[in-house]
Formats: sequence, C-alpha cells, structure tokens
Amino acid sequence: MCQSVFHNRPDVKVTFSLINRSKQVPLARLVDEGELREQLDHIRSLSLTRGESTWLRGNTFYGKRQMFRPDFMEWFEKLHLPPYFLERVDDQYELTFEGSWPEVMLWEIPALAVLMELRGRAVLNDMKKFEMQVLYARATAKLWEKVERLRDVPGLRIADFGTRRRHSFQWQDWCVQAMTEGLGDRFTGTSNCLIAKNRDLEAIGTNAHELPMVYAALAEDDAALARAPYDVLADWHQEHSGNLRIILPDTYGTAGFLDRAPDWLAGWTGIRIDSGAPEAGAEAAIAWWKARGEDPARKLIIFSDGLDVDKMIELHKRFHERVRVSFGWGTLLTNDFRGLTPDNRLAPFSLVCKAISANGRPTVKLSDNPNKAMGPAAEIERYKRVFCVGDQERREVVV
Amino acid sequence: MCQSVFHNRPDVKVTFSLINRSKQVPLARLVDEGELREQLDHIRSLSLTRGESTWLRGNTFYGKRQMFRPDFMEWFEKLHLPPYFLERVDDQYELTFEGSWPEVMLWEIPALAVLMELRGRAVLNDMKKFEMQVLYARATAKLWEKVERLRDVPGLRIADFGTRRRHSFQWQDWCVQAMTEGLGDRFTGTSNCLIAKNRDLEAIGTNAHELPMVYAALAEDDAALARAPYDVLADWHQEHSGNLRIILPDTYGTAGFLDRAPDWLAGWTGIRIDSGAPEAGAEAAIAWWKARGEDPARKLIIFSDGLDVDKMIELHKRFHERVRVSFGWGTLLTNDFRGLTPDNRLAPFSLVCKAISANGRPTVKLSDNPNKAMGPAAEIERYKRVFCVGDQERREVVV
Repeated sequence: MCQSVFHNRPDVKVTFSLINRSKQVPLARLVDEGELREQLDHIRSLSLTRGESTWLRGNTFYGKRQMFRPDFMEWFEKLHLPPYFLERVDDQYELTFEGSWPEVMLWEIPALAVLMELRGRAVLNDMKKFEMQVLYARATAKLWEKVERLRDVPGLRIADFGTRRRHSFQWQDWCVQAMTEGLGDRFTGTSNCLIAKNRDLEAIGTNAHELPMVYAALAEDDAALARAPYDVLADWHQEHSGNLRIILPDTYGTAGFLDRAPDWLAGWTGIRIDSGAPEAGAEAAIAWWKARGEDPARKLIIFSDGLDVDKMIELHKRFHERVRVSFGWGTLLTNDFRGLTPDNRLAPFSLVCKAISANGRPTVKLSDNPNKAMGPAAEIERYKRVFCVGDQERREVVV
Repeated sequence: MCQSVFHNRPDVKVTFSLINRSKQVPLARLVDEGELREQLDHIRSLSLTRGESTWLRGNTFYGKRQMFRPDFMEWFEKLHLPPYFLERVDDQYELTFEGSWPEVMLWEIPALAVLMELRGRAVLNDMKKFEMQVLYARATAKLWEKVERLRDVPGLRIADFGTRRRHSFQWQDWCVQAMTEGLGDRFTGTSNCLIAKNRDLEAIGTNAHELPMVYAALAEDDAALARAPYDVLADWHQEHSGNLRIILPDTYGTAGFLDRAPDWLAGWTGIRIDSGAPEAGAEAAIAWWKARGEDPARKLIIFSDGLDVDKMIELHKRFHERVRVSFGWGTLLTNDFRGLTPDNRLAPFSLVCKAISANGRPTVKLSDNPNKAMGPAAEIERYKRVFCVGDQERREVVV
C-alpha cells in the first residue's frame, strides 16, 4: 500500500490521528506520557535493517518476485518516520502525525501497537510473578482452545491481521506459532512482516480504507468524489494482480459502491467485508458477481471485522460452498485477554489511527456501520448524499 | 527418619520394593528400560554436595540447631545409594533394593520420582511444541485456581508433601513457588530439602509407616509385635521434640493403637491422619486426647491422605476451632495433570515404594483402609489378631 501511495500520490500532505473509540478506557491515566514519548522517539530512530531490506527485496509476495521496485526500496531504506505531536487532553492522548502521505501512513501500526503494549505493561506492573505467569498460562490455554476449534473445521483458512492492536509483540509471535502448529497450511500467513520473516511464513495483506479516504478528500467536486473510490482501485489495478486485487467496498457504503462499480472491478479476485453485518455483505458481493456475469465460486471473500471463532465457523459454514472464503483475524486472535484479570483491565479496546485530512481537507469514512463513521458532520452528510447512502444499521464496535 | 534408623537399627537388612497399585498403568510399556536404568545408575552416582551438606549441618529444623549429629552427617556425606534390582515382568517393573536399612530407605523418594517423571516424559515426547506449552499453561492455571481457593480460607496451613509422586522436579519447584506467592507464611514448607534450600523455605516432614513396619517385622513374638509400634515412637521420643513428635497411628489400625497407647504418647504434639475416613480419624484423636486429660485445642492434626482442595477446606472448616489443623498436601499438589490430556495419560497414579522385608521377615501394613494393606495373607491375619483389627471400610486409593 505504501508503494502504491509512493508512486501515485507521493506529495499529498496528510494528517493521521489516534482515535480511541472506547472512551471508557482512560489511556492517559493508564500510560505514562514520558514512557510513551520514549517509545515514539525510539520508533523514529528505527529504519530498515539490512536483513529486513534484503528480505523485502528478495522475497516473493503473492507469487510475484520483486514486488517492491528499486526506487521504492531505496526510499524506504532511508526512511525514518516523521515527527509526532502528543498532547494529553483530560484522560486521553491527542496523538497526530503530519507530513507526506507515504511517510505518515507508516505510523499507524507502530503507534497503535505501542499504545496497546504500554497499556498492558501498566497493568502487568501491578502483578506479582506467579499471578503474571498464570495470566499468560490462561491466555495460552484460551488461545489454544480457539485453535483447536478452528482446526476441526476442514478447509477453513485464516491469516493473522492482528498486528496493530496486539497485546504485545511477543504475544503476537506466540499466537502465530499456535496457528502454525495447529492449522498448518490452513494458516495462510501474517500481516506482520517481521514475524513472517522470522518464522518463514507468508506476509499477507490487502488495501485499507485510507486509500479511498484520501483520494476522496482530494476530489475537487462531487463528480470527482463519486469517482474517487474507483480511481484508487484503478491505480491499484495497474500495480497488482491476483490475491492483491481485493476490493474493500464499504468505505462509503457497500451497496452503492457495487451498484456503480465499473465492470473491470468484477474481474478482481475478491472482496473484503470489514463492517456491517458480514452475512449481508457477502450476499451482496455474491449477487453482484452473478449480476456481472462472474462465477462466485471462483471468487474470494475475506472477512475481517471483529472476528472470533464462533463467527468464523458460522460464516465458513454458510459460505464455503458458494465462494472461496478466508478470514483476516485481528484483535481477538492477538489480544483476547478478556476475562483474564479480575477487573478485565487487559481487555482489548477500539483504538484506531486514521487519516483525518489530506492537503488540508478533512477525510470522511462512512462504512456499513454508522458507529464506525468519521469526519465532520457536514462532510458526512455530503458524502452520504454523493454516495446515495440511506439508513444504516448501527452495530456495536468491540474492537 | 534416616538419622533415627541410623542410630537405632543401623544393621537391619531390609528389602524395599516398588509397588504399582494402579495395575491399569502399564509402566514397563510406557517407560523404556534402558532409560530407567540410566536414571537409576545416575542416582547411584550422586552424593551430597558440599553446599547441601553445609545446609543440613548448619540449618535450624523445627527450631532446633544442628538437628543432624556429626556421626550421622559423616556417614551421610560418604553415602552412595546401594544397588538396585530391576526386572520387567509383563507390563510392570519389579524394582527392589536390598541392604542396610538406613541406606536402602533413601531409595524410596528418588525411585518413585524418577519413574513418575520418565512416564511423564514418555507422554510429552509425542507432543508438539505448542501442545506441550498449552499443557503446562493449563496445569499452571489449574494449580493457581487451587491456590486462590486456599488463599481465601483464613488460617489454613499447608505444607508440600508431594516430592515422591510429583510430575517432575521442575513442576514441583513451580508448585512450591505458587504456594509461596499465594499463601505466604500459611505455606509452611516443603518436604523436599533441595527446594527448601534453594527457595529459602522450611524443610518439613514427619515419620512414616516404614518405621513401625520394620520394627514390627523384627518382633520375636506376638507380645513384642504388639509393643513394636510404641517401641519405635519411644526411640523417636528420645531423638525429637515439638513438631517432630507427631504420631502416625494407622499402620495397624488407629483405634486399637490409641486404645493401647502409653500415656506419654498423649503428651506428643499431634497426630497424622493418613488413611481411612479423615473425619473419623480426627474425631478418634480428639476423643483420645480428651480421655487422656489433654486439651485438643493445643494439639495438632496433620491430614495427609490423598488430599485436594475441597477436602482440605472441608476438614479445616470442621476441625480448626477444635484442634490446630495442618495439611501435608502431596500428589494432587505436585502432579494434578488429570484431565489435561485427551486420554488422561498424565494422570497421577498410586505408585509406592515400601519395605517388604526386614532381616528376612516379611513386613505388614494394615492401615485404616484394606485397599492400602500389604504383606503375606497369613501375616496380615496374624497382625489383625494381635492388633485387634476388626472390619474396616474399603476406600478407593486415588494416589
């Protein structure tokens, strides 16, 4: 995604901002500001190691050798992340990043991961040695029970999408090992490149909402705005093929997106369902493929919204004979510490880091769940009008 | 106990033998004979390290400095365990030890511990890495749940008596750490001297059935046999005071033992209940103390037979306002792997190592549970007659 932005929109100035959707978690009371600054400063001191660079340059991603082009790699090797702006406001942090899009976008993952891990450490600091051992023992047992249940479902394929809101790096690595041992090649990979490299797994991933959000913010008028979600995929289309051609249709409403989509998009490999009722999203995708003369059985649906075991098994059961089904399992793979401490102080929560403006204009996200919408109210109304989004079902956002 | 034997009966020749009361566990199919011989040979190569000897010589046990006398320590420092005799008979091992009593008696603990641990390793060998991690995670969680429940009972005091049938050395050490963190000074110590030394805890213990069993086997006639259980305690009385003056009354039936006991025994600190219904044993002890003009409230009852959390809480509740109560928690502390593998292959089982003869005469144990009785049938009948043991309630032996 960064390479695509680097090639197509390198000069766009963006602001990314941390958004804690779970206001009941008083992040600034839990995480010491000095410690947070220390970690963020450390992140800014990092750059690709020689081994990491070699792996990116030499690896085959989605069957394609040298997916990363030399000009991108040269830029990437020299990159240090741009400055951050941190301020405590009551019990929350305002944490923003400004600069050119390809640089700023890389802050999302480490910023979120560091906050989640510092919050976890703050809780662990109060624990005695054995209490902590037991915590991880219980978490391990819970993780393995999930893996065992998934293992019993033939043909179920899952990737780890849980980097940004993981409990900790070590824990994510541990979860990946569990999935590898339990599911074998039905565990299709991890979106964490370092873990993929260390554990000799596939690095796996797709495109995200920030692409259409920034393209849309840059649109000069309503007509350009209506085109933006397809423009971004046209750029993507040139760059990628196969399993990287996955449509993320929900940024401004899945139904309208599919209705107005150009025919060449129906030729893409699959669709990722990331908000709204997943069954409805998948049915809409199947109906759309049929309407466009495509065979759904050859298409891939990737579910990725707040998944846990029950839901995955249910969705797999419902759809696996009609389409190819896969899952991007995130926070409830790598951070399911719910119920493991008396006061549930380690439960994951909904922390995101989003592009909030591009070249000075606010971004907007609607999604298929109004609880996930973001942007200024007037702009949200304009987007709903342009994209013909009517009433939407509100759904609780767990993580 | 070894020092007492060393001083009082050093020249008695004894045979100890392994007895697997759980015939359904085919030890010789599970544990490789070569591996077992290797371990037993290794045990024979061991002697006290300088640090261990220093700790035994310098430590205060039960408030008494230099409990171990110089002549005993000199002998002990030079000791290597005597030969073993191992033969496979069908699916079981016949493992016996012969020699002078103070030497042979020291085989019991390492022989049992090695067999339990080798059996565990044989099961673990078939496991994959994560499966094994999860096994220990679950065992840790289970252990901690027990500790948490015990922690909630004010005044409940427990010691670790789980060395001989532990899952493994590391696991016992882990259990001791859990008890230390969870119970603080209500965890009164461990019968494992090495762990006591390493973890700076009290080494704790008492006398066992082999003392009256060997003394009884040596008795020249029925009158001497009837006296034997008291003779052994008379020798013990000279050697020890305080918390080491604990009566183990059940070797040939608790009721008869107490009825015929000399008055000086009523002055001892407490009674250990190790077979039969523990409530009945404790009530018998309390009634006996009262009958002998002693105040039960100043006496100590140590429960030690097949204990787990429910039973300990129940017994504590019933007796702690009437006597001082303590628990010697054994196998279900250090080896409760029941239910943690699909086929329960790691569940503990009832393996013991007992004195079976002394100077060529068979030993006999009756206990308060006929399922724990051992010895030749004719001798059992004779002992029952001499000790006036009538009908006894059969109770399942779990561990």
